Amino acid sequence: MQIDPEFMRRIAAVAARESLPRFRQQGAVTNKQEGGFDPVTEADRQAERSIRALINEQFPDHGILGEEFGSENADAEHVWVIDPIDGTRSFISGIPLWGTLVGLTRNGDAVAGMMAQPFIGELFYATGHGSFYEGPHGANKLTTRPTESIANATMCTTTPFLFKDAQKDAFERLENAVQLSRYGTDCYAYAMVAAGQVDLVVETALQPYDIVALIPIIEQAGGKITNWDGGPAEQGGGIVAAANPRLHDAAMKILHA
Amino acid sequence: MQIDPEFMRRIAAVAARESLPRFRQQGAVTNKQEGGFDPVTEADRQAERSIRALINEQFPDHGILGEEFGSENADAEHVWVIDPIDGTRSFISGIPLWGTLVGLTRNGDAVAGMMAQPFIGELFYATGHGSFYEGPHGANKLTTRPTESIANATMCTTTPFLFKDAQKDAFERLENAVQLSRYGTDCYAYAMVAAGQVDLVVETALQPYDIVALIPIIEQAGGKITNWDGGPAEQGGGIVAAANPRLHDAAMKILHA
Repeated sequence: MQIDPEFMRRIAAVAARESLPRFRQQGAVTNKQEGGFDPVTEADRQAERSIRALINEQFPDHGILGEEFGSENADAEHVWVIDPIDGTRSFISGIPLWGTLVGLTRNGDAVAGMMAQPFIGELFYATGHGSFYEGPHGANKLTTRPTESIANATMCTTTPFLFKDAQKDAFERLENAVQLSRYGTDCYAYAMVAAGQVDLVVETALQPYDIVALIPIIEQAGGKITNWDGGPAEQGGGIVAAANPRLHDAAMKILHA
Repeated sequence: MQIDPEFMRRIAAVAARESLPRFRQQGAVTNKQEGGFDPVTEADRQAERSIRALINEQFPDHGILGEEFGSENADAEHVWVIDPIDGTRSFISGIPLWGTLVGLTRNGDAVAGMMAQPFIGELFYATGHGSFYEGPHGANKLTTRPTESIANATMCTTTPFLFKDAQKDAFERLENAVQLSRYGTDCYAYAMVAAGQVDLVVETALQPYDIVALIPIIEQAGGKITNWDGGPAEQGGGIVAAANPRLHDAAMKILHA
């Protein structure tokens, strides 16, 4: 089955209607877990409700897995995976690097996905025929960079302090080998790999809804994305996304040295 | 003397004409220092040329200090301080958190300033009558947050690894005390303090052109910004910017504990 890009635009639009009016407002932040600091906003909940309604209306046989409201019809051949606002820490800090992530799996494999940043007015999507961008200054097909050497690579991660023990050592080996390392980019970093602006994203402890939408965008732009063991990225955990397969191999060699 | 906000818009426009076409393009990056990684783009140089020409035309008696082309008429009563693209690492990674910074000092004190992010289409400025914002979804006067407790504060810094020795210990004490710490935000973090979205920015080793433009934006929105010793921020070095004077005091107590 083929998803119409127009459906991705409709998802982005209904989500933006909930998220955008609440961005850079005061008072919209709550704590999901008592004691911890896991912020989630009304925007998150309302956006997921709207996205679910749209999917249920258009594809009543499909399953849905969402960050806020769990799973429905999870055994379906096609399952949509939703993170209404990835990067809630950016959102509550006024920084427009958060995104609405919606991916589609078929028998567990990510086959289509979108990332929208509605404040800037950007949409990154892949529906099977390449990865595409629509933004405030134009639209184009996305192609990753040919960077083959780790020494020439730009790498992003959310924060280096999420890595512990052996993973921390592995991440630091890679960080010391790249040309430039940047933090705090959340889903936006994966979009920049697809766009040929960043070469690597390395992260840990992701949920499926953090990553499923981004897999087709990376892959259909020419990139390679797996978990830290080289297996499918769809289940989340540790993630290694690279601009191309050779750079992915080089990063994996350093992580597993 | 009073700067017309329209002059700030004109500066933003001439700079954007140079920076924007080169953002998210390949091949525009050079190394300023051999051996190091201090990227600077043609955009940086061309934008500064355009800004200097505009200032020279409008205010021929004023001095100028710029990142790229040094100082002219530096002993003038009024001196403009320019960083055409602050956040070059964001720029070369495709991440729209870089900004064009232009500030005005009178006898060494920052009295007016602007930060423009042309990809998103944002302008933050202060010319003596408060701080103001113009963006893709509207315009408004900026007011900092009343946050008084460090435990409730959101803090930004470019990267924690810039702090060394005693400064590192001091920064870590503060980072352990805040609610949320974020990295990689460059000049955008200061704009978010003025906008009431972030409470603290703590940095080290800044140049005057990294900070002069941002001082009036912070101060005229209700914030307090000094160096690490509590003195004027205009000369750069270590910087502590806070949403309000009481939070600034609280941060200074922890940094100097």
